[in-house]
Amino acid sequence: MTISSSRHDDHGLQSVRWAGDRLELLDQRLLPEEIRYLELTTPEQVWEAIRELAVRGAPAIGIAAAYGIYLGIRDREEDPARLAQEVRRIGDYMATSRPTAVNLFWAIDRMVRLADNLAASSADAEAFRSALLEEAHKIFQEDEETNRLIGEHALTLLQDNMGILTHCNAGGLATAKYGTALAPLYLAKERGWNLKVYADETRPVLQGARLTAFELMQAGIDVTLITDNMAGYVMSKGWVQAVIVGTDRVAANGDVANKIGTYSLAVLARAHGIPFYVACPLSTIDLNTPDGSHIPIEERPEQEVTEGFGKRTAPQGVKVFNPAFDVTPHEYVTAIITEKGIVKAPYEENLRKLFES
Amino acid sequence: MTISSSRHDDHGLQSVRWAGDRLELLDQRLLPEEIRYLELTTPEQVWEAIRELAVRGAPAIGIAAAYGIYLGIRDREEDPARLAQEVRRIGDYMATSRPTAVNLFWAIDRMVRLADNLAASSADAEAFRSALLEEAHKIFQEDEETNRLIGEHALTLLQDNMGILTHCNAGGLATAKYGTALAPLYLAKERGWNLKVYADETRPVLQGARLTAFELMQAGIDVTLITDNMAGYVMSKGWVQAVIVGTDRVAANGDVANKIGTYSLAVLARAHGIPFYVACPLSTIDLNTPDGSHIPIEERPEQEVTEGFGKRTAPQGVKVFNPAFDVTPHEYVTAIITEKGIVKAPYEENLRKLFES
Repeated sequence: MTISSSRHDDHGLQSVRWAGDRLELLDQRLLPEEIRYLELTTPEQVWEAIRELAVRGAPAIGIAAAYGIYLGIRDREEDPARLAQEVRRIGDYMATSRPTAVNLFWAIDRMVRLADNLAASSADAEAFRSALLEEAHKIFQEDEETNRLIGEHALTLLQDNMGILTHCNAGGLATAKYGTALAPLYLAKERGWNLKVYADETRPVLQGARLTAFELMQAGIDVTLITDNMAGYVMSKGWVQAVIVGTDRVAANGDVANKIGTYSLAVLARAHGIPFYVACPLSTIDLNTPDGSHIPIEERPEQEVTEGFGKRTAPQGVKVFNPAFDVTPHEYVTAIITEKGIVKAPYEENLRKLFES
Repeated sequence: MTISSSRHDDHGLQSVRWAGDRLELLDQRLLPEEIRYLELTTPEQVWEAIRELAVRGAPAIGIAAAYGIYLGIRDREEDPARLAQEVRRIGDYMATSRPTAVNLFWAIDRMVRLADNLAASSADAEAFRSALLEEAHKIFQEDEETNRLIGEHALTLLQDNMGILTHCNAGGLATAKYGTALAPLYLAKERGWNLKVYADETRPVLQGARLTAFELMQAGIDVTLITDNMAGYVMSKGWVQAVIVGTDRVAANGDVANKIGTYSLAVLARAHGIPFYVACPLSTIDLNTPDGSHIPIEERPEQEVTEGFGKRTAPQGVKVFNPAFDVTPHEYVTAIITEKGIVKAPYEENLRKLFES
């Protein structure tokens, strides 16, 4: 793996990009202080980048994994049946990087299914390899289109001059472009609206402070940074008319896994009569997960909590609980906004319809 | 001001202590990494220590301010009438250090009233000065006794093996000894109970991570550190049977000002059917403040949020909202626990009775 810090343009930061012979990932651990791209050429490097949060955000993880699979077979000359086995093996490996975001598994499945089909249709090795690269490109491009559509739908729920609260980063940095929860904010800006955004800093990894505040400021959107525990107070002042967040997995019944703290926000929004919206592509909705209790919740190293700021901020040896996500029961979700439209309760029924139409 | 780092005993950390000719304050900004006492000899140094959070916690601030006033007159040879004027002047100045905690004003008032009485009763200058020092000692000693009583009353609301969630630091470090919200946890430990405590880290200044986790660990109490945004998730798992917090001011109607994030916790506790307790001495209850809307909420420098721990964690120039406190409406408060017993709604009536009995 090599590192490039010269190849960026402040106004066009991309979380994931294919550079002809390698995958480049914006190292989000260093933002906003430093803009640096990792140059990755093996599946192991991609696995590590996902695991260590250099790339994060459910859609971006899926895209990175798809390219990671391609990197594992691009120099192999075996026959397609053997290559398809290898794709499956790398896919299984890539799936162990993080457990919660379903887009990871969705993108891997897509690559594996294509590989199986190609092997069955006796494509040659070169055609096999280039079809897999094309598929990764498609996953990337579709994400951009999808997010634009999510933004259009979400915008119908908002109005000029509203206060919007968001959590973690479900923005351009979490996706190919636009983001999910932040997509309507970019579109609102294009239309000249003045939304006032409150960004939770989102402990422990501070995606809200480091990424959301950063990308919204770059776009000239009015954003105010708060600590997570200020959200209730800001709501009580009447400053928030909608909460919008992304998600790492929506279960068949509409339960939503997202960054730790999302559940608290949903409860607070309910107590203040504020709508709570979740924005995501269909690839984040997992009809095979019946409800939130079946979503595995990743627990991460305690150092994220005890020494996250470049300095130890808790006693040596303290016990720490550090779940990366929580589950918001569907009763708290006002609507789920997808590229195919806005879904409301009853979710069990209405989410299923999304996939049938 | 000089600094002493040799004069400590890990098992007897004291937030405030009188050292014969100077006030010593444990510099809480450096905990838990470093144990260092500030040695203060002027009111200006005490003002600065309160303002900059070297000493914090409503009762400890009150105690420090009382000694600070004494430091301002101890070397003055004027007659008591003139000294009493000086006490009032220093008191007015000390009152500008922080606006929310009412114990500050309560302790200042107590010193000023005593000074006025002494001047009226024609005490001599030496008697005047030593009476003021005695008063500061009394404020200190009463705080320790008060907190022990608060702990006894609070313990009647708890049971062995409960999970307890607390926010910020309302412990020994916030007071002369025992703390308010943490007092029952120390008494429970003495009785051999096994409580399981969850400490919110309490952004932005991390009093929960740095102080509460630290002092409970030192006492051998089972404490788990979480980030503020995990509180709702921990409650949803059924791990919390009571929330206990301190307060900086209780209004006449029972509204409670406390560290930012307390209000969110109260709303979350309500949503999970968990009792929400506030522990404080009578000196924190201000019958002259009719309700929470009359409590001034201090806003603090944005650097606490953007570069609190030796590293910048947000974009340069980002807008920040950084209120140090919020107000929890009395409807969310299950009980207020004082040295004179447990008060429940209707607070307007029952808080008034406390002061009459």
